[in-house]
Amino acid sequence: MNTDSAAAPAASDAIRDAASVPALERFHAVIPAGGVGTRLWPLSRAAAPKFLHDLTGSGQTLIRATWDRLAPLARGVMVVTGEAHEGAVRRQLPDLQEQDLVLEPEPKDSAAAIGLAAAILSLRDPDTIMGSFAADQVIGPVEVFQDAVAQAVATAATGRIVTIGITPSHPATGFGYIRSGRRLRVEGAPDAHDVAAFVEKPDRRVAERYVTSGRYLWNAGMFVAPVALMLEHLAAHEPDLHAGIMEIARAWDTPQRDEVMARVWPGLKKTAIDYAVAEPAATAGDVAVIPGTFTWDDVGDFAAIARLNPARDASGITVIGDTPRVYSSDASGVVVTDSDRVIALIGIEDVVVVDTGDALLVTTTEHAQDVKKAVESLKARGADDVL
Amino acid sequence: MNTDSAAAPAASDAIRDAASVPALERFHAVIPAGGVGTRLWPLSRAAAPKFLHDLTGSGQTLIRATWDRLAPLARGVMVVTGEAHEGAVRRQLPDLQEQDLVLEPEPKDSAAAIGLAAAILSLRDPDTIMGSFAADQVIGPVEVFQDAVAQAVATAATGRIVTIGITPSHPATGFGYIRSGRRLRVEGAPDAHDVAAFVEKPDRRVAERYVTSGRYLWNAGMFVAPVALMLEHLAAHEPDLHAGIMEIARAWDTPQRDEVMARVWPGLKKTAIDYAVAEPAATAGDVAVIPGTFTWDDVGDFAAIARLNPARDASGITVIGDTPRVYSSDASGVVVTDSDRVIALIGIEDVVVVDTGDALLVTTTEHAQDVKKAVESLKARGADDVL
Repeated sequence: MNTDSAAAPAASDAIRDAASVPALERFHAVIPAGGVGTRLWPLSRAAAPKFLHDLTGSGQTLIRATWDRLAPLARGVMVVTGEAHEGAVRRQLPDLQEQDLVLEPEPKDSAAAIGLAAAILSLRDPDTIMGSFAADQVIGPVEVFQDAVAQAVATAATGRIVTIGITPSHPATGFGYIRSGRRLRVEGAPDAHDVAAFVEKPDRRVAERYVTSGRYLWNAGMFVAPVALMLEHLAAHEPDLHAGIMEIARAWDTPQRDEVMARVWPGLKKTAIDYAVAEPAATAGDVAVIPGTFTWDDVGDFAAIARLNPARDASGITVIGDTPRVYSSDASGVVVTDSDRVIALIGIEDVVVVDTGDALLVTTTEHAQDVKKAVESLKARGADDVL
Repeated sequence: MNTDSAAAPAASDAIRDAASVPALERFHAVIPAGGVGTRLWPLSRAAAPKFLHDLTGSGQTLIRATWDRLAPLARGVMVVTGEAHEGAVRRQLPDLQEQDLVLEPEPKDSAAAIGLAAAILSLRDPDTIMGSFAADQVIGPVEVFQDAVAQAVATAATGRIVTIGITPSHPATGFGYIRSGRRLRVEGAPDAHDVAAFVEKPDRRVAERYVTSGRYLWNAGMFVAPVALMLEHLAAHEPDLHAGIMEIARAWDTPQRDEVMARVWPGLKKTAIDYAVAEPAATAGDVAVIPGTFTWDDVGDFAAIARLNPARDASGITVIGDTPRVYSSDASGVVVTDSDRVIALIGIEDVVVVDTGDALLVTTTEHAQDVKKAVESLKARGADDVL
């Protein structure tokens, strides 16, 4: 069990030996770029997932913005994504190193993706501190985020798995929460706290209690840890998965990579890194948290897009698109378009219109969460061509 | 001034001489097919006006249904339409005779269109009784309509201009009304009445009084009359227009048609047949009315389309289109589509979605009338490519 001192009883030998190298110099960022973003259909879909879109009107895709937040801090940035997205990811990230692109033959959830990244980085340098950050979140200001990451790296260097939790702005019921414990004393990480527990998505009443208490943070799925410690916990809780990713990692920088990947990957267990590593590690007292005071949005649905892109003129319509031609009268809401079709909105409030070549969605911001159900229904009807 | 007898003092000599030929054998229908139907944009537009669409899910365009209602009654059916629609009209009406197609180089409102038809028919056979019926109205049952037309023709044969008025189903404020007068005694037309006056679109309160009184009918713009009488009134009230259409008509069945049409037509006055003929004739006591008890809809906006096409399944969505792929959840309204794109409607009531290749409209049935304003605004912005 951990205490609130800077020493970390559960850390591996490698971590203790590496203490002389400044922590940030050993920091390697990992961006798992998966997840279709079903609630953003038909904009986001299997062939063009959420992270490949500019959802904030910034002119940048979400994965590019994620890269730009992390690259200045890290000695390298690894991307784990589906084979289908190789071309798009390379175009978005021209500075991505060949050795830092991991392509999944099929999706296997976050434990396999992040575990394989940890294993590959560990074999290249066992003292690596990795930090995993999803490719499709909107965060700002960058400097506040980077300060939290730097604190997380400093805390990870003491032999902990460190998550960055988001200070809640409202009693959200769509996220898991992190209950923070005692303040830790870590040099370079004044905000570090122990994690008492990860808790599941609460109902509204419970969420309100969480927010009022001041002790709970949103779980944004950001994990910073020594690779050796990540793999240690993975080996303890998912030994088969650990064995599989280690076998792939040993072949990774050799001519056998493709053969081993093709043979081993399809058999790996699908599970989330939260279950495979973070929650057991928290129970063992090995997890710390840095409260993030930056704004954070996982752009979970089109209501988020309306929120993140306040209407810029008197028309009341937020427009996302390269060449939009939107006319509105007594209307408000969001239009997302990838065409130059004229779109006329008349006498309709809080509408969401998403116009793509082969599919059109019309809903309201209030019903933005229901888009997922619609996609499931379309799937059940065999409309895979537009999913 | 007319009396309620079958004799018609104002009728021309030609009409009295022709009395021996049964009236219906002299009946020639005219279908003016103009009018973009702006309130049905972007479905209806300059290149594809309302009458070229199937708006009732019957499988027939409105102009084809109009033809089918009239052709069995008439010795011929003439169509007056814009040059741009020649091909589409010929494809819709394969039985249209070459001599019965009148193409306008530019739109000139109904007095010129119907007047030219009257003049051409008059020169071919001065005893012709013409009946003019717009190409874009929805009417049923056909037999009830045809009975009204037969009564109108019988009444016209007594030397009157006869309109068919629609028995109002509600106090509409979007139509002009006809105040009927005394019952006429016409053989073959038991329902014929004198017209006391045409009145403009009323406000709601006045419309309610009209409907309660039982003496008012909707003016649907249907006119049946001896061509000679039509031209006589036109000559009296719009002498320049009359001279112009007579000049064109005299050249019509000669090699000079195109030259004369191109020279004279552009200078003709733009005015409605109601002002040029019907209202002055009513003041002169020359107009009768047959009350139509058929259902009638001018499909003025998308709310009408929702009305005319009740939702056919539990989904609550009325779908108009050849190959629609509509998915809905907690939604109601109308979808009109000319594509096979997937359209998903979620959590939105009484919505109107019109999906065409270059323009998309999203509004509500309540705001259906506002579509016209939107089109005017698009025009002002120079978006002519989609109008």
